[in-house]
Order: sequence, then structure tokens, then C-alpha cells
Amino acid sequence: MTDRRRLRLGAVLVGTGGPGSHGAWKDPEIPGDASVDVRWYVEQARAAERARFDHVFIVDSQFITPDSPPHYLNRLEPLTLLSALAVATERIGLIGTLSTSYDEPFSVARRFASLDLISGGRAGWNVVTSGDEGTAGLFGRDQHLDYGQRYGRALEHVRLVQRLWDSYEDDAFPRDRERGVFLDPTRLHAVDHVGEHFRVHGPLNIQRSPQGQPVIFQAGDSDQGRDLGGAIGEGIFTHQGSIEAGRAFRDDLRARAVAHGRDPETVLVVPGISVVVGDTDEDARAIEAEIGRQDADFDRSLAQLGRPFGWYDFSQHDLDAPFPELGPLGDRSFKTNADAIKRLAREQGLTLRQVVETISAPKRSPFVGSAETVARIFTEWLDGGAVDGFNIHIRTPSQFARFADEVVPILQETGVFRREYEATTLRGNLGLPIPENRHAVARRAALAA
Amino acid sequence: MTDRRRLRLGAVLVGTGGPGSHGAWKDPEIPGDASVDVRWYVEQARAAERARFDHVFIVDSQFITPDSPPHYLNRLEPLTLLSALAVATERIGLIGTLSTSYDEPFSVARRFASLDLISGGRAGWNVVTSGDEGTAGLFGRDQHLDYGQRYGRALEHVRLVQRLWDSYEDDAFPRDRERGVFLDPTRLHAVDHVGEHFRVHGPLNIQRSPQGQPVIFQAGDSDQGRDLGGAIGEGIFTHQGSIEAGRAFRDDLRARAVAHGRDPETVLVVPGISVVVGDTDEDARAIEAEIGRQDADFDRSLAQLGRPFGWYDFSQHDLDAPFPELGPLGDRSFKTNADAIKRLAREQGLTLRQVVETISAPKRSPFVGSAETVARIFTEWLDGGAVDGFNIHIRTPSQFARFADEVVPILQETGVFRREYEATTLRGNLGLPIPENRHAVARRAALAA
Repeated sequence: MTDRRRLRLGAVLVGTGGPGSHGAWKDPEIPGDASVDVRWYVEQARAAERARFDHVFIVDSQFITPDSPPHYLNRLEPLTLLSALAVATERIGLIGTLSTSYDEPFSVARRFASLDLISGGRAGWNVVTSGDEGTAGLFGRDQHLDYGQRYGRALEHVRLVQRLWDSYEDDAFPRDRERGVFLDPTRLHAVDHVGEHFRVHGPLNIQRSPQGQPVIFQAGDSDQGRDLGGAIGEGIFTHQGSIEAGRAFRDDLRARAVAHGRDPETVLVVPGISVVVGDTDEDARAIEAEIGRQDADFDRSLAQLGRPFGWYDFSQHDLDAPFPELGPLGDRSFKTNADAIKRLAREQGLTLRQVVETISAPKRSPFVGSAETVARIFTEWLDGGAVDGFNIHIRTPSQFARFADEVVPILQETGVFRREYEATTLRGNLGLPIPENRHAVARRAALAA
Repeated sequence: MTDRRRLRLGAVLVGTGGPGSHGAWKDPEIPGDASVDVRWYVEQARAAERARFDHVFIVDSQFITPDSPPHYLNRLEPLTLLSALAVATERIGLIGTLSTSYDEPFSVARRFASLDLISGGRAGWNVVTSGDEGTAGLFGRDQHLDYGQRYGRALEHVRLVQRLWDSYEDDAFPRDRERGVFLDPTRLHAVDHVGEHFRVHGPLNIQRSPQGQPVIFQAGDSDQGRDLGGAIGEGIFTHQGSIEAGRAFRDDLRARAVAHGRDPETVLVVPGISVVVGDTDEDARAIEAEIGRQDADFDRSLAQLGRPFGWYDFSQHDLDAPFPELGPLGDRSFKTNADAIKRLAREQGLTLRQVVETISAPKRSPFVGSAETVARIFTEWLDGGAVDGFNIHIRTPSQFARFADEVVPILQETGVFRREYEATTLRGNLGLPIPENRHAVARRAALAA
């Protein structure tokens, strides 16, 4: 069982809505340009900070088509956005999504290290691989990396970034004016790496932050994705539909972490969930149903269905014929998602129209109800060993205010959630250890030997 | 002659000092960790904004050795830094240096577009190519790009970034809740580019800012560097020692711009200069001399001498023998600088020691004196057609305060410099036009034909 005081809460900030959300921008509470308005994000981050959330969480993607949901079409780049939020907040963690598929380890290391210093040790990196095949074209590649390549590359990338983050030991800068010593050169360590996917020679030109290194979040539910999480993830972003599924997933992730020689307590499973709070459970379900109606859009859902299959154009098929045979389509792209759709169509013998309707049908989130209900369900998932916390997606500011004003106090009262921040860093608040600089560890080991 | 009201002023923010500055960190006014402390930058940027400066300017480099100057060893990444400054300021422009040698056009376009929106249209990109040969190793390349490659790549890179910035026309997002129209897909334009250095297929996923596109600054004094400036530079960062040299340089840049079919009024020459203000001219020269003594460091200067030659190790040579014959060394690196050093040694018949002493000798800046003197010299350079403004490097906050409190009022009184910002965008304040979206221009042309 996990520590009951330590429910972790993150706020997923999506200006005009998440992946399936074609209608959020029509809500009068959400400005149509929320996804590109830093003031909108500052307001949401400050509200989450007042509610003592551990972090805000910025998802990302790069390739778009005209059918992409509004938030995808037009959004701020996560690192520049988070840096702005860093100086507009004081305690809340700042987690940004960045793909390992096309950016260089040196650049990624440098940008996150800079965010980490700017925020006083509150940065986190949500490591993803690029699922959209079209992304290859944005970066001048002929073909998208296949699944195995992407995950091998991701692991090598993250480990390299972490080595670069340790370029300076924590006592590297004596800055001794009397003796005229700014740097102790014995505490500067160049990376010298030749691997399967990357070569890097040289040190990073920035010191470590008060939390040592940014926290590594990781998302990806496939076998390779889970293994990457077990190897390097300190926070795991996932989606699970029930306590049982959540517990099985969490147990699996913790076991994989142990197999990688890690302490399972340093792997926090924090699923992304939708929350709706109402006066009663019925009221909340009615709000959820209204959101479902706002988001419904058959034509866009048909276009979106192509995404996990490399933006395959389903409109060429008869809507009322059986779901088409797609062969290996999707294997290079969002494979877990593509496989699930193929299986659904096959097992239930659905037409294309039925698949679109099933996929785009309003979801019933387990986390919908009165404040008491939501707090109770949160606690059941936590006590049931299914989660270490939640990354919460709440549609509107007024809904977020209900969560903060009604649900959070219950969680605080019952001892599940903090009343005040424990620390100034993201690691400190999440209860994750500060990784000691590897070169300092090595020197101590050499001295002891 | 240039518009006398339009002296442009930029503040070059270097926490613990510029390239040759080994001693700034010892100054009691400058915190030893200024280069990694966002609060330090916020203070300096706000002081520059109070003085109605056009912009702050962040220089950059990536490769370091233990002998690099303090500011190089440990610094914030420019884009994350500027994004933090964007929400801590209101009117001042935010110009960041980023090399075209190793970052992908899509990433560069996205990050600057994001900064431009976050700041409400105050972003500028100082385009450079990477001179340090060691940079290649940071990005897994065997060999540094040679000089011609670097500049060909830079031109193609910038033009691609500018095309990506025009992915959305300004009326692309009707966000019409009644009709349910978020995007007008006819106003979204994918780039489809196959060039010598880059291929990009797809649109950028972010709209234009109130200034249309970030302002392009460019630095590079060689023939290729100047031609790049003539082709794409709207602000030119340079170093010129006299009004005559400045006027020749500015005339040359403007002529190159005309040769590229551009209006020369859209190319602003804004040299980087050191300024010292004293009670009298003698007092100011004494302060400058003290700075020179603070910075003097023969051993580090010897190591630094290697930088333009690809970090060649001069310590292997006899200090009192004639300056060594270096052949083509430096051609791939900081070529203009390397050639100048070779020429200096050859023409004056200097030993290695004498070259180091000459290079590292305290500079006498033309912009040192009483407030009246500095204001007069500024005005002479402006009226003499040598500059459109200055990027000012001032060593300490108290020196900056003297400039702001004593020199700026004289420049305002004589009508050379603004009393209030003219606009909310960097383009508006610099007097540069807002580039119309190319696709809107093309459609209008097609309709008129």
C-alpha cells in the first residue's frame, strides 16, 4: 500500500481541449485562443498552485492536419511556455513533453536544465516518442522511425541527457574571489559517448539545480513503452479504466523497475484522468454528458481515426461495410492504440461507422460525481494500490475551482493530500530522491576502495 | 542620414561578463552565479525597460573548455531565459542568439514563434553559425561544417523558418462558435521544401504574433557573413572601431540589402559596444582601466587565443618565439577573427607572447567619458551614418544606472531617443514593417491578375 499522505496531483493544462476534444473551444468559459495565450496558462497554473498540486503537465505533438483538434492546431511550445510559468509561480512543478525522436540530446539536456534552474528545481521531462508518422517530414526524414528503433533511441537519449546533466559536480564553482578561482576543473566532466543512435563528445554548459536533475516522466503503454518506464521513468503517465487494471499496471511497472535494479518507490504511477464534480452524482453525470455532446463530431472523428494508423484516410471506405483489413498499418505509429482498434472491430464485428461511433462515444470517466464521491474514488484507487496520484484534466476553470474548493479539502481532511508544500523542488514534493552526481559517487567509491 | 529620433538601444545581458571578460565575476556588484540566475536577468531587463531600451540581447555559445570565460562555462539557454523575461516585462524586445548549424528549422521556428506569442510580439532571433569546432562533437558530427557550408546552410535555414512562420494566415482562425468553425483550412499552408541542406514537409502548428514574425538579427563580419546580413538581416550585430569604419560597413550592408531587392531602411546596423560613464572623461577612463586590470589573465588569454583556431593549444609553443605558422587553421572556425590575428602577427612581426598581450590588452572603447561626452559620441555616430543604434554592454548595474539616469535624458532632450515606447511590439519600436503573410500576398496578386 502506498503512503496515504502522498497522493500526488498534477493538472494537465490543455487550452482548448485534449485529443478527442473537438468542442471545448465552444465553451463560453474557454477563450478560443487559450492554447496560445500565456495568460490563460498562468491563471490555470496559479489556481493549481493555490490548490497545492504537485505539478502542471503540458502534453505535446508537432504534426498536424486540418482535422487535428483545436489544441493541436495552434499551441505554445512546452519549454518556452513552462519557462514563462516558472517565473509566474513559486512552488508548483513544471512538466513538459518532449519527444526523443528528432531533437538532439545536447539541446534537450540544455533546455530542461535551463528550465530547472529558472524554476529553482521544479522541472520535469515527460519523455515520449513521436507516434505521428508525419513528424518525420517536419524533420527531413524519409521514413518515420519504427517502433523498436524509437524505444531503443529513447532509452539511449534519456540516459545521455542524464549524463549531460551531471557534467558539473555540485561543488564545481568555488567562485572564490580572494584566490581568483571561479571553476574547479576537476569537477567538470565531458561526456564521451558513442552509441547505436547517438554520439556526444563534450560537457553541458550549465550547472545542476537544487533538485539535482529534472524528474523523468514517461508515457507509453506498450510492452516496449512499459519497459522504458521501468528503466527510466520516475513518474508514469498512463490511462487505466479500473482499480484492478490500474493495480495490475502499477505492479507490472514496479516489477520492471526492480528488474532494472531500481527502488520501486521511486516509480510513481500517475494516470491521466478526466474529473467532473457536480452537486450530486447525477448532476456530475449530466455535466459529463453535456461535454460529450459538445465534443461529438462524426466527420472529425472519422478523420482522427486515421491518426494511430499514420493518418490513414478512412473516408475512402464505405461507412457501412465491415471495418477494413489494415494489415501492418499502424505498427510504426501509435501501435497500442491501433492494435486496440483493430481488435475491437474484429472481436465485435463492427462496421467502419460503428467503430467511429464507438471510439467517439462520450466516455464515462470513473472520476465523476459529487465532491464526496470523487474524493472517495480517489482514495479507493490510492489505497487499492492502483495509483500514486492522478494527472487531472478538468475542462473549465469553474470545474477546476469546484475540485479545488470541494474535493481537495476532503482529501486534506482525511490525510490523503497535503495542506502545504513540503519542499521548494518538484522532487521534494513528489517524495523522490535527489540523484547524487555520478562523478561524486564514483570518486567516493574510488577513495573507499 | 538616418532619422535622428530613431536611435535604437539594446542591452547585451551577460551575467558574469563577455567573451574576454575573465574578471567580471570578481566585481562585488555581480553575483558569481549571475549567468544562471533568472532574477539577475529580470532585474537587468526591467532596468533597460525603464530606460526605454528597444531590446535586450542574449548572446550564446555551446562548446566549452575549462578555460572558457565564466559566463560561457555556466549559462541559461537563450530561449527559455527570454520566455521567463517575457512575462516579467511588458514592452522591451527579447532577442536571442541561436545557431543554424545544428538545430532543425522546425524546432527553431516553433520555439521563436512561441516566444513571440508569449511576449505579445517582442521576439527577435540573432542568427549565427557555430564557430567553435568542438560544437560538432556535442551534436554527433565528425567534422565541423566548413565556412561556406555554414553560411549556405544558414541562409536556407532562415528562409525555411520564415516560411514555417507563415503557415497560418492571420485570418486562419475564425473561431466561430455559432457555425462551429474553428479553423479555415484554406488559410493553413504546409511547407514543402527540398533544398541543399534541409527538407521540410508540413506546416508549423502555431499562429503568427502581433508583429507577424520575429525580427531577424544577424552577426558575422566576413564577406559571407555580410552577404547573409544583406539577404536576411533586419538588425546587424557587429563591432566597428570608428565612425569611418562604421559608415563604410553600414553603407556596404545597405548596398548588399539593395542588391537582394530589399529596402535599405529595413536593415538596422546596431554594433555591440562597451560603455563606461564617469563624472568626467578622465574618471570614466580610470574606471575602464580598472576593468581592464580586473580582466587581465595571461594564462586564460593564451588558452582563449586558441578558440578562433578550433581551440588550438598554443601552450605547446615557445612564448618568445615568433608567432607560429598556422596554415589553414581557423578557416573552419571563427575565420574573420583568426585571419585578423594571423595578419596582426605577420605585419608587426610579433612573438606569441606579444600576440597574447596585444589581444588581451585592455581595450579603449570610443564610448567612454562623462554623460555629455557619451551622448555626444552616440549622436556623432548616428548623424555620421555609421549606425542605427547600439547594443550596449555595460559591466555593472550601477554603471547601467548611470547610463540610464545621465546619458539617456540627454539623448531624449536632444530628440535622438524616445521618451516613451511607440508600440507594443519589437518591430513597432524598431520602426520595422510587419511582414505580410506571403500566402495572403500571393492570393491578392492572383486575384488582381
